[in-house]
Amino acid sequence: MFPLLFSGSALRVRSSESDTQRFVNRVLQKEVDTLKPVRIGICGLGTVGSGTFNVLTRNAREISARAGTDIIIEQVGARRDNPACDTSSSNVTRDVFEVARNPDVDVVVELIGGTTVAKELVEEAIASGKHVVTANKALIAEFGNELFAKAEAKGVTISFEAAVAGGIPIIKALREGLSGNRVEWLAGIINGTGNFILTEMKDKGRAFEDVLKEAQKLGYAEADPTFDVEGIDAAHKLVILASIAFGMPLQFDKIFTEGISAIEPQDLTYAESLGYRIKHLGIARQSDKGVELRVHPTLIPAKRLIANVNGVMNAVLVKGDAVGPTLYYGAGAGAEPTASAVVADLVDVARGFSAAQENKVAHLGFAADALQDLPVLPISEVTTAYYLRMTAEDRPGVLNKVTQILSDSGISIEAVIQKEPEEGGTEVPLILLTNRAVEKQLMEAIDGIERLEAILGEITHIRVESLG
Amino acid sequence: MFPLLFSGSALRVRSSESDTQRFVNRVLQKEVDTLKPVRIGICGLGTVGSGTFNVLTRNAREISARAGTDIIIEQVGARRDNPACDTSSSNVTRDVFEVARNPDVDVVVELIGGTTVAKELVEEAIASGKHVVTANKALIAEFGNELFAKAEAKGVTISFEAAVAGGIPIIKALREGLSGNRVEWLAGIINGTGNFILTEMKDKGRAFEDVLKEAQKLGYAEADPTFDVEGIDAAHKLVILASIAFGMPLQFDKIFTEGISAIEPQDLTYAESLGYRIKHLGIARQSDKGVELRVHPTLIPAKRLIANVNGVMNAVLVKGDAVGPTLYYGAGAGAEPTASAVVADLVDVARGFSAAQENKVAHLGFAADALQDLPVLPISEVTTAYYLRMTAEDRPGVLNKVTQILSDSGISIEAVIQKEPEEGGTEVPLILLTNRAVEKQLMEAIDGIERLEAILGEITHIRVESLG
Repeated sequence: MFPLLFSGSALRVRSSESDTQRFVNRVLQKEVDTLKPVRIGICGLGTVGSGTFNVLTRNAREISARAGTDIIIEQVGARRDNPACDTSSSNVTRDVFEVARNPDVDVVVELIGGTTVAKELVEEAIASGKHVVTANKALIAEFGNELFAKAEAKGVTISFEAAVAGGIPIIKALREGLSGNRVEWLAGIINGTGNFILTEMKDKGRAFEDVLKEAQKLGYAEADPTFDVEGIDAAHKLVILASIAFGMPLQFDKIFTEGISAIEPQDLTYAESLGYRIKHLGIARQSDKGVELRVHPTLIPAKRLIANVNGVMNAVLVKGDAVGPTLYYGAGAGAEPTASAVVADLVDVARGFSAAQENKVAHLGFAADALQDLPVLPISEVTTAYYLRMTAEDRPGVLNKVTQILSDSGISIEAVIQKEPEEGGTEVPLILLTNRAVEKQLMEAIDGIERLEAILGEITHIRVESLG
Repeated sequence: MFPLLFSGSALRVRSSESDTQRFVNRVLQKEVDTLKPVRIGICGLGTVGSGTFNVLTRNAREISARAGTDIIIEQVGARRDNPACDTSSSNVTRDVFEVARNPDVDVVVELIGGTTVAKELVEEAIASGKHVVTANKALIAEFGNELFAKAEAKGVTISFEAAVAGGIPIIKALREGLSGNRVEWLAGIINGTGNFILTEMKDKGRAFEDVLKEAQKLGYAEADPTFDVEGIDAAHKLVILASIAFGMPLQFDKIFTEGISAIEPQDLTYAESLGYRIKHLGIARQSDKGVELRVHPTLIPAKRLIANVNGVMNAVLVKGDAVGPTLYYGAGAGAEPTASAVVADLVDVARGFSAAQENKVAHLGFAADALQDLPVLPISEVTTAYYLRMTAEDRPGVLNKVTQILSDSGISIEAVIQKEPEEGGTEVPLILLTNRAVEKQLMEAIDGIERLEAILGEITHIRVESLG
């Protein structure tokens, strides 16, 4: 009868469990629940740390009523105070590792960021048998496989809803809400800075560098904007989403990443006149040949809902085989939106979702031994349509030569924009929209076109996705 | 030491539990998990029932890998077979109550619909100690309070993700994903039939009756379309969403409901020229005075994402105090989208979320004893802006008289459209957009305006929400 006492497995043995037994279990469990709140330690008091502190304090009534128990900030670990939150009546330490070792802390909330101290902290917390909640996308994307294994060996859970798309509960949607589906693909605007820049460039015809400076002034972009504008931040998030969607280990090194710094305002205008918008998307797709994992600027039909997600907002479009397309939209960053996701993870832990239950929701949604080592396709093998923009000498036969090269590579053309030269000019912009082609064939064709005497400079190419 | 053996409460007592003990628990639990799949009984083989059967069968590998155990269709109860799914190798009974009493069934999936047989079936399933998964919005909205109490008394769970917005995991988002928030308001397009009709009316200038007939032909609308076009279906869904958002018992009898049958194509056109769209929204808002619960046609700014949700698609916009606005979009009906939600609930049960764990996620998200009996405001006390359309005689001073009456009631005007009379005509349409006003004051003003000699017939009034 011993196993019957484990409530987590009672469903499966219920038929042999008596009502009396269940009642006794219930009473005993209720008593324990009432006695013991969940005690957390917040490590890091930056934007997200202070936001989490404030949300937990302000919404304590709602949170306790939902969690079924109190969530108490037992300790805060931060190198310095943050005027955005009042920790004067809290137990504050300057040593975050003290939090990880504190026997009165049940859950360590890692909000330091980065992959050095944060990684050590999480490892120490796991070693001390504590659950971990983190907003750290880099840590999960790059070191998730080993951290999850450590957590599973210790019977604790790492929760990371806040690591992707801020306050949008997209991890939960994929891991739990769409668990009946074979996910075919997903596409996300998962970097608010990049989306803000593209939105401003489009709406106001401003240049990339100009808008980037404003984004830095507004606090949307870091002093070193590489992570945002070159797509590394989006790549961290995409690799997490893809692993959960398809059930495979995290493979950050396999992702193709292209930033938005080469996009010019005219590309946004031409795209518009073709009925498209340019968005910086993270795309993951499951095909017979393998999994596509890519972050790059993408033309998408202007009528799609996701094409109308503007400014710093994020959105993820998920296509499941049963549910069809579903979209999740909200703030992808900021103190309280991110805190919203951190607190949701804490409530999950408190509700006993994952607590010492052998991770009933596996870290990546699929049971660890059910993850498949799916191959990730190199970008050269990916098939999409393309937007091509080139500068041509204004003389007869140029378009014909260009289309001949494409045709020889088996690439057909969907639309052409050819403008008159400016007054007195001899150069014209030439814009082509191709049908779907394998990337390496397109690259060969581009090489050939660039070698034409009448084509000046390099050809801008942007991938096109119908998301239909 | 007895309580230490309950894994659901182990988080709270972990500090006194040894690693060895935990390891032993784990091994024992794993064994039980491996031995016992979750055995379900599907009751009802209509659109959703057959969709659920097919998704469970087709995606068995993904579902087992996510659930951590197999979900087995132990029995199917249906009055007749459905050619949409092949149940030839299943144990089929014509008596659904046999499923509720079957000792080999762990979970009863109620997909019959209605509130008579379905209610009896759910009650019988609960009485037999079985978990229930249902897609039945009417049953939950009208009888949820008593059914939840019965389920809690028996230590089983009723899951109803599929009852609202089909495949969109909106119940999970509200109950779990946004659990750190005080929800300020939510607004949803939660009836696909109504949204299809309004979309067609707007895009093609067609009349309501005409599009309704097409919707019936396409299978989007029932032969008796009352539930859809008069807003009862949306009201069922809204009352469920509101209770979860705000933490209050279900109060279906308090909801204000107005359908779309009075909307004319010209209203859609005028709205457009004012920068708005008309959508049939369910709106729930928490204010100091009480909770607003209302379903009615609504003008919303055309630039809002939700204003661009077209055809049969659904979307719910939720405003939390921490997360800000978030939106959830997808198919609100149909065989497999609804099945997607049913299966997600089954995976939750299988993962041990709710199984015999005393409903760690309470039915309405908040612990049953933490629900607040919040007052629902009568529609007369609700404050919104209004769109007014009236027919006036084409003579001087009419507009002045109308605005005087509004002004006397303390209602100011945001915009006016006054058209020339048609060739040889003497009547003109007069359209006003007011600022926010209390509904009963507006109704008094409308009474006064309708009594003016120069105003012909009744005034069309549609509420306006900025959703900002």
